[in-house]
Amino acid sequence: MYREEIKVLDCTIRDGGLINDHRFSDEFVRAVYQAVSTANVDYMEFGYRSSRDLCPPENFGPWKYCDDDKISEIIDGIESNVKICIMLDAHRVKEQEFRPVDESPIDMIRVASYVKDVDKAIDLANRMHDLGYETTVNLMAVSKENDADLTEALKQLDKCPTRSVYVVDSFGALYCEQIEHYVKLYQQYLPGKEIGIHCHNNQQLAFGNTVEAIIHGANFLDGSLYGIGRGAGNCCLELLLGFLKNPKFNLTPILRVIQDHMIPLRDEIEWGYLVPYLITGMLNEHPRFAIERRAGEDRDKYAEFYAEMVEVSG
Amino acid sequence: MYREEIKVLDCTIRDGGLINDHRFSDEFVRAVYQAVSTANVDYMEFGYRSSRDLCPPENFGPWKYCDDDKISEIIDGIESNVKICIMLDAHRVKEQEFRPVDESPIDMIRVASYVKDVDKAIDLANRMHDLGYETTVNLMAVSKENDADLTEALKQLDKCPTRSVYVVDSFGALYCEQIEHYVKLYQQYLPGKEIGIHCHNNQQLAFGNTVEAIIHGANFLDGSLYGIGRGAGNCCLELLLGFLKNPKFNLTPILRVIQDHMIPLRDEIEWGYLVPYLITGMLNEHPRFAIERRAGEDRDKYAEFYAEMVEVSG
Repeated sequence: MYREEIKVLDCTIRDGGLINDHRFSDEFVRAVYQAVSTANVDYMEFGYRSSRDLCPPENFGPWKYCDDDKISEIIDGIESNVKICIMLDAHRVKEQEFRPVDESPIDMIRVASYVKDVDKAIDLANRMHDLGYETTVNLMAVSKENDADLTEALKQLDKCPTRSVYVVDSFGALYCEQIEHYVKLYQQYLPGKEIGIHCHNNQQLAFGNTVEAIIHGANFLDGSLYGIGRGAGNCCLELLLGFLKNPKFNLTPILRVIQDHMIPLRDEIEWGYLVPYLITGMLNEHPRFAIERRAGEDRDKYAEFYAEMVEVSG
Repeated sequence: MYREEIKVLDCTIRDGGLINDHRFSDEFVRAVYQAVSTANVDYMEFGYRSSRDLCPPENFGPWKYCDDDKISEIIDGIESNVKICIMLDAHRVKEQEFRPVDESPIDMIRVASYVKDVDKAIDLANRMHDLGYETTVNLMAVSKENDADLTEALKQLDKCPTRSVYVVDSFGALYCEQIEHYVKLYQQYLPGKEIGIHCHNNQQLAFGNTVEAIIHGANFLDGSLYGIGRGAGNCCLELLLGFLKNPKFNLTPILRVIQDHMIPLRDEIEWGYLVPYLITGMLNEHPRFAIERRAGEDRDKYAEFYAEMVEVSG
């Protein structure tokens, strides 16, 4: 699929950080930045800009805050055309500071928001836009929203200067026909904006659904190295680059950073297709139930977990 | 997706047997049969009926041969509506014996064939049909065929009494649009037959492509427990049953046999999404290259393997 407008975003450090409280080593983050730079990926997301009041530093590593100076330290000396982005939660904002874009290593701010918080998201996106940043708004957990509320949110977002609005399948619950529905709905109400896609792999559909979104016109595509991300993880960046035929992308450095860094990391922290994540995904429930389950002794008691989750979701 | 005509086939023992030379224990095969019976899966495939002249018994376990008496021993005493099937390779036939269907525990024979061997496949399917068996013809590695040859084969198969003809993505190379193409091509040339789908998971598309095939009308669906199968494995049966909304299916026994048997087995033998399989899949090459790679010391040298495979496939 060659389409000039397609932009690939690596969310390894950001979504992967949800597994380990954002405690990646500098060496690791630098290796990822080097790899995505050599591969000519368009964007790399480092983490969140969280408030230290709301999220005390003793509980988190540096990528919960993504201070400008910390990012500058990581990328120093690496030749790169990769644009750098971070994420903000629209519902967890408290006096985080932002420099104007030309005084910051950051190029783009992604605002993650539930539909109910879309006004907060628009306000944040407007402020970031005024500071010179590119922006996206990522509407989380759309599989739990009804189309009327979602449509209202999209109408409001159409008036906001954000460049892209994302379909986010936070629960890994969507099948291909639903992806088609959402991408078309977004296009209908956001005629001037790019549509983004961010999938989770609970049902092994993250890559397939990303391809489905591409076919219907989505141009902002999230992937992560070896699929790292909360719970079942995300669309694998290596699969995505293998599918996209734009010769600007280079798969080899991606394969190399996976063998050197992701395979050893997978022995330390867990992500990917596991039956408890399938169960929350097919029941359209938050992965936290499955994450809790995997942390306990009953991690492989799937039949019992299924019975419990049918009760929860019933 | 509720459609009365849909039939689900568990190929755990047959495709999984390609990893361990068909050496599953009786206890394991019996547990799988019990689980798919309680789950109300339509068919279970036990393995191959290979010639002991061509495939010497010292090299293989019992499911390379699937003797009628061995199958009868396994299923004895288990209440079940599951139909039993086995596979024949059209290009490796030498005097295997078959009883008439009413003297055998087997209900259906699946003939696996490359397009070039379709005459042999039709001959075999005719003979099995005459003995009273249901039959399918599974056209392997369609991703390597050109449409002209494939169309010729389909025209011939249309005159054969086989109930179903399968699209088989042996290399895990196909994307959703190609699945749509093949299902529609088969429907065009095989108007009276059911279309089957058998996918491999090299690019994490086995389940997504199976759903795609269902949407376009495929009714014979292969899946295996926890995706077991050669190389990257198959479509996960647990995902497929989670998607199909026919209330006759029961997911719980499937989850239970996975936790009790498949998770321990996965520690002994390897299958599933691994980067070397992604590489052969995206390059539309046979998984044997990746299987050999995974058996050696360089199993995780992905960048080097990719460079080698680009040469092979170029």
